[in-house]
Amino acid sequence: MTRRVRLIGIGSGHPDQVTVEAVRALNSVDYFIVSDKALGVGGLNEAREEICRQHIDGDWRFVKVDDAKRDRTDPSDYGKAVTDWHEARTIIYEKALIDNPGDAGFLVWGDPAFYDSSIRIIERILARGNVEFDYDVIPGISSLQVLAARHKIVLHGIGEPFTVTTGRRLAEAVEAGHDNIVVMLNGTFAAQSLLEKGQGGDWDIWWGTNLGTKDEILVSGNLAEVTEKILAERSEVKEKAGWVMDIYLLKRRR
Amino acid sequence: MTRRVRLIGIGSGHPDQVTVEAVRALNSVDYFIVSDKALGVGGLNEAREEICRQHIDGDWRFVKVDDAKRDRTDPSDYGKAVTDWHEARTIIYEKALIDNPGDAGFLVWGDPAFYDSSIRIIERILARGNVEFDYDVIPGISSLQVLAARHKIVLHGIGEPFTVTTGRRLAEAVEAGHDNIVVMLNGTFAAQSLLEKGQGGDWDIWWGTNLGTKDEILVSGNLAEVTEKILAERSEVKEKAGWVMDIYLLKRRR
Repeated sequence: MTRRVRLIGIGSGHPDQVTVEAVRALNSVDYFIVSDKALGVGGLNEAREEICRQHIDGDWRFVKVDDAKRDRTDPSDYGKAVTDWHEARTIIYEKALIDNPGDAGFLVWGDPAFYDSSIRIIERILARGNVEFDYDVIPGISSLQVLAARHKIVLHGIGEPFTVTTGRRLAEAVEAGHDNIVVMLNGTFAAQSLLEKGQGGDWDIWWGTNLGTKDEILVSGNLAEVTEKILAERSEVKEKAGWVMDIYLLKRRR
Repeated sequence: MTRRVRLIGIGSGHPDQVTVEAVRALNSVDYFIVSDKALGVGGLNEAREEICRQHIDGDWRFVKVDDAKRDRTDPSDYGKAVTDWHEARTIIYEKALIDNPGDAGFLVWGDPAFYDSSIRIIERILARGNVEFDYDVIPGISSLQVLAARHKIVLHGIGEPFTVTTGRRLAEAVEAGHDNIVVMLNGTFAAQSLLEKGQGGDWDIWWGTNLGTKDEILVSGNLAEVTEKILAERSEVKEKAGWVMDIYLLKRRR
């Protein structure tokens, strides 16, 4: 039988957010490949350990690998920086799979379907042909779903579309005329630029950070009125938790 | 202590797709309010029963209510037809809550955050002020996530946005220039209209129906080449399962 690699969506942090399918998958593999990037960040590492502790019967094994560094010196070529980083990760993960026989799991934050490189990297490893395996993907609850659940909102008006994008491409989505925009992957609070353009009053925001963890914070209201509070909360949670991972829905006022 | 209403996302059909949080919620309520619309459709009803059977310790109770009929005679006023329907459901569910003391659960397919009326109806019931309760929302795996997992795809190119919309508003999303479009809530196969406009070759599609059930079918390829196959599979699954619930990603070729 061919060995198996499993990309397991583990939700946005809280151990109760994994699915029954994910729990079975966690228990089915021989080890997990975990990058030191994840291990380096205190809160994330603890959350990952806690998920294994609560849901795996018996012992588990982390195969720790160095993480590739992403070149952030040339912001104009984001695509190339990311694909170079994928290639570097491909080689690191391929080596881990060759060195460690058995079925391997990857613990993927949120859902592998959104803004995650695991599927692309696994496809690259397969294309290189140095190691053989079957792989599957187990969906997980994404932070955009936790955001909606905590605020008790639907992400769009009745029958309307919604768009998911990144902080770096928010301005583009606003210009394209979207009314419901979910913004993920934020280095900074990109919606501040709307305020600076005098458009803050046109938008309502439902914001959340470190969702599913003990440091979770929610803020909602008109963008012009709550931006200051959001910036303060971002700084505070970064201080307290050591990391900040925020997400928000922007809804255009009619 | 105030009574509690819980909107529980139960995923797209398979019992393993519920989260640990949802399992705890299923076990925490006194009864579930279930509409006869859901009960009438054989496969959906069985899936719901199976989720309760596998995950609830001991017994459970379904409070069955008549479902309001949605006015489909005037397609030009979709918004009004839906809000009228919400109002009718509001009154039906309010009565069920008044008649049945204790904590109530709603079993919501997929995730209450996308194209689901449960949150809006609960807010309407609270606004009427005839019955008091606290409520919370438990996110569930949406069919768009199962689609991505089964096809082993990310829903967008690296760092790109993606848009989620309905079959009835697909043409709009195409004209707006979106490259990654997830289409949900399909009465018919709306992407066929792209083919009829001679644009079939411009799009690749990843399609799935009745995801998470034993009748699940996946098709992918260039839209021009696979539309016929998708139409045939839609008819066949409808015949076999009694219902068809499909979803797809359209990706514009560069």
